[in-house]
Amino acid sequence: MLSRASMFCLRVPTDPSWAKEAVNDLDAILVDHAHCEMKAANNALSLVLRHPGNLAFVRALTDLAREELDHFRRVVAFLERRGLELGSPPIDNYASELRRAMGRLPHADVPPLTDRLLVGALIEARSCERFKLLLDALPEGTSPELKIFYEELFTCEARHYRMYVDLARDALRAHWQGAANREVDEREVDSMVQGRLTLLAEAEGTIVQALAERDFRATVHG
Amino acid sequence: MLSRASMFCLRVPTDPSWAKEAVNDLDAILVDHAHCEMKAANNALSLVLRHPGNLAFVRALTDLAREELDHFRRVVAFLERRGLELGSPPIDNYASELRRAMGRLPHADVPPLTDRLLVGALIEARSCERFKLLLDALPEGTSPELKIFYEELFTCEARHYRMYVDLARDALRAHWQGAANREVDEREVDSMVQGRLTLLAEAEGTIVQALAERDFRATVHG
Repeated sequence: MLSRASMFCLRVPTDPSWAKEAVNDLDAILVDHAHCEMKAANNALSLVLRHPGNLAFVRALTDLAREELDHFRRVVAFLERRGLELGSPPIDNYASELRRAMGRLPHADVPPLTDRLLVGALIEARSCERFKLLLDALPEGTSPELKIFYEELFTCEARHYRMYVDLARDALRAHWQGAANREVDEREVDSMVQGRLTLLAEAEGTIVQALAERDFRATVHG
Repeated sequence: MLSRASMFCLRVPTDPSWAKEAVNDLDAILVDHAHCEMKAANNALSLVLRHPGNLAFVRALTDLAREELDHFRRVVAFLERRGLELGSPPIDNYASELRRAMGRLPHADVPPLTDRLLVGALIEARSCERFKLLLDALPEGTSPELKIFYEELFTCEARHYRMYVDLARDALRAHWQGAANREVDEREVDSMVQGRLTLLAEAEGTIVQALAERDFRATVHG
């Protein structure tokens, strides 16, 4: 089984300067964060629409979308208190490059859904890492509500990461069982999921480094 | 002000045979209902994405989407218990014809958002009417959970109807205030919203009648 330690599947730690820049422009981070939550909800719902066959899967992703929308509305409340505007969602180079990297994975007997869920897992893992960095860098005098919010989010993103990996494993198992019409070896399922996750995590690390060098902006994944 | 009585903005009552056919194929109604809730959530979220400028509006529609997703997951739980499949969303002639009718409304100094919100209001009003008909037609022996669920939904849809009309009014007021840079006459706002709603309700009545004559299927809006 993938251990809880593999929550730290990330290959490249965020440069410490990110948190410094982020707290210097907390307003921009909050606006970007709101868009991230909405995108996460929409992504979960689009997976539901494309894969309605398994109702347990449908329920898990619908619950996830509801939670992301709850986070969205809470970030929006912080924006309101600070007199900020939400605006249109910015171009998301991080997510689109991650999807391109997924398209370049070596061919294997893996359903596209498994890879998509692992991309979701990685985005949650990176958010989790960044929210922790942000939390540690928030200056004295930051509103306690905001600190409590990011503490809660840190825990949620870790849970979402594990849920995405579990669903990726379920999707792979169902795919193999359907093809072979037999019980499959759980160790083989774990090994394949871990292998795909490692490849994607390497690509994700490269993307994060390139984005940081290219055009630093105060964004959750920039 | 638009009275609560205008909840009954519908111009054409549903033919009583609808409820009879619906309870005869309750499984099909439940599957269609699940898709309706998901579409309602996605519609609310797409309005948020297109109109991020007003955060109170954003919050109201996000809360609505969360509630629709809660209903969706609860209908999905009924599907699971009955061993039904969700499948892909069916073609929604009702909603697409209603949107076409919206495009044929006479030109007026009304923002497209107001008309879109009134279409949302009408869909909720029709759902509300149908859930009541369904509730009254459910045979003896129907699971109490299902009855309680539809009772709750009846109340929710009525509330959503009123919320959509209120938001349509807010959008029109903001549009007129922005153009004239002055306070606007609330009676003019009400009169315009009521006028648009009446035109849309007439079109909706024609659509519902045509759908019932053309190809009756056990659907929430068919």
